[in-house]
Amino acid sequence: MANQDQTDNRVVIGVDLGGTKVLAAVITESGEILSRAKKKTKPEKPPEEILGRVAACCREAAEGAGIALDAIQGVGIGSPGPLDPDKGIVIETPNMNLTNAPVTAFLQKELGIPVFLDNDVNVGTLGEYVYGAGKGLKHVVGIFMGTGIGGGVIVDGKLLHGFSYNAGELGHMKICAGGDVCGCGQKGCLEAYASKTAMIKRFKNAVNSGRKTILTKLVGNDWSKLTSRVFLKAVEEKDELVTKEVRRAARYTGVAVGSLLNILSPEMVVIGGGLVEALGDRVLKIIRKYAKENSFPITFQDVQIVAAALGDDAGILGAAALAWRNLNERKS
Amino acid sequence: MANQDQTDNRVVIGVDLGGTKVLAAVITESGEILSRAKKKTKPEKPPEEILGRVAACCREAAEGAGIALDAIQGVGIGSPGPLDPDKGIVIETPNMNLTNAPVTAFLQKELGIPVFLDNDVNVGTLGEYVYGAGKGLKHVVGIFMGTGIGGGVIVDGKLLHGFSYNAGELGHMKICAGGDVCGCGQKGCLEAYASKTAMIKRFKNAVNSGRKTILTKLVGNDWSKLTSRVFLKAVEEKDELVTKEVRRAARYTGVAVGSLLNILSPEMVVIGGGLVEALGDRVLKIIRKYAKENSFPITFQDVQIVAAALGDDAGILGAAALAWRNLNERKS
Repeated sequence: MANQDQTDNRVVIGVDLGGTKVLAAVITESGEILSRAKKKTKPEKPPEEILGRVAACCREAAEGAGIALDAIQGVGIGSPGPLDPDKGIVIETPNMNLTNAPVTAFLQKELGIPVFLDNDVNVGTLGEYVYGAGKGLKHVVGIFMGTGIGGGVIVDGKLLHGFSYNAGELGHMKICAGGDVCGCGQKGCLEAYASKTAMIKRFKNAVNSGRKTILTKLVGNDWSKLTSRVFLKAVEEKDELVTKEVRRAARYTGVAVGSLLNILSPEMVVIGGGLVEALGDRVLKIIRKYAKENSFPITFQDVQIVAAALGDDAGILGAAALAWRNLNERKS
Repeated sequence: MANQDQTDNRVVIGVDLGGTKVLAAVITESGEILSRAKKKTKPEKPPEEILGRVAACCREAAEGAGIALDAIQGVGIGSPGPLDPDKGIVIETPNMNLTNAPVTAFLQKELGIPVFLDNDVNVGTLGEYVYGAGKGLKHVVGIFMGTGIGGGVIVDGKLLHGFSYNAGELGHMKICAGGDVCGCGQKGCLEAYASKTAMIKRFKNAVNSGRKTILTKLVGNDWSKLTSRVFLKAVEEKDELVTKEVRRAARYTGVAVGSLLNILSPEMVVIGGGLVEALGDRVLKIIRKYAKENSFPITFQDVQIVAAALGDDAGILGAAALAWRNLNERKS
């Protein structure tokens, strides 16, 4: 508990629950991370076991910070969805055995402190909003480009949940009506053009049709090796295929961002994920150019289109922010 | 002032300021219209003259209701934008000489009562939300299909303005990246596919290339005669060209609605404008089908996609709602 004055000795636990691993961290209201813990999710196990592992991870984080569980204000959790944050229930998760699991009720009983749940990408956006790139603003859109593309929308300082609680599915906005088929089954989604999955599909086709690329050497037939670092290396070595595909993904992302400026008019669009982390301004410049071409001068003017600032910590920090917001709302 | 009890004897004036005409009406908080007035806008005149005509129209409406101006709580105005509702200034209007005009300041001085300003389509959406199809809901999207396509977004009971105050430009969301050129200069906007302007362009091309259609008889070379009634007649007489184009516009609108469900997750999408007014369910059925195909089951489920209920009165009623909301906020 070093470096903390009297006004900031309250802490929460932020949990990033993913299909592979659970991360938990003890975090102050100003966003200082006091301790971290990590466990495998074992997503195929029964819900009680998965959630039991989450609870154990929370206990480990508390121990690491030297703070008793009952001295912790609450727990925030970001989980894949769709889910119902009000009821604290995961409605469905394709890659984890948590369908209809009463996440907050189970963990509240297990840990004895308040637990709050939201969608992982909403939580990541909230993290960037409260502790990262979007600090101090009011209207922020988050787009996270990975295997899929997720999004979160902050309107007037609050996460937009909408009627179904599942607003902000920005990877599944349509940028080409009737266009490329997406993993979700719909057509023309942003994700079908600018996700890593979409890019790998096109790389494979190119390689199969005899196209020369450094990827053959760097990843061979194992596309799981296609990390952001490989993207960076291929672009730096001016590999034509990769450079062209990265630009294409950035162009389509720019069109989507432009469209979102006209719909939502945020003051900042935060873009996260490996591609932007590795290639930074090389990608952002193209996104900005196409966003400008696809929005009105008045909705583009003074907008910041920036890289996410928190990297992998957006999940735990956003989950902590979720807990703080709910706790402070209860008090007021 | 018949039919009003003691609790509802306060009134406001709702103004619908368009490029051709100004409509003003004295309206109670429950949405009862007590009197109406109408004037030509004369949009090419100096701003003081245009706003002077608005003031005169308000006075005439007050007189019509037999209520002195100073007994009226305030005035709400819907105007083409972009504009700044907080400052009460129209930033730019292509078809009216009001660029940078201090609308609310001028009228407040002229009329001696509070004046509130917002974008005409936002105001129309608010009208449908408070007094029309969306009564009692929380998350509503309004799409108004006319010469252009305008939109308004209600999030958690409030109009979404965003950072630039000009959110909700739903006619200029991109549904086909790099696609058809829109009147706004951008490419692939919904408006470039589903507005009357876009349809007329395609009708003209078809007629010029020798395509047979009842439109040759009904409108000849004067496309301003292409009213909703003509659309209805052509569809009822099974004109192939018109039927096909109407279906196409509805399909693209459905794609946009699906995309908006994934982004905003409203509980209702209200669709207004001549096409839906005239053709009703024939158009709505197609919009619903494509919205379903282009959204997630969870964001589509239980969503109502309906025709606007207020017709041309959405403008004055929404302007009244704007005034009531601002006045009630001040009090609280």
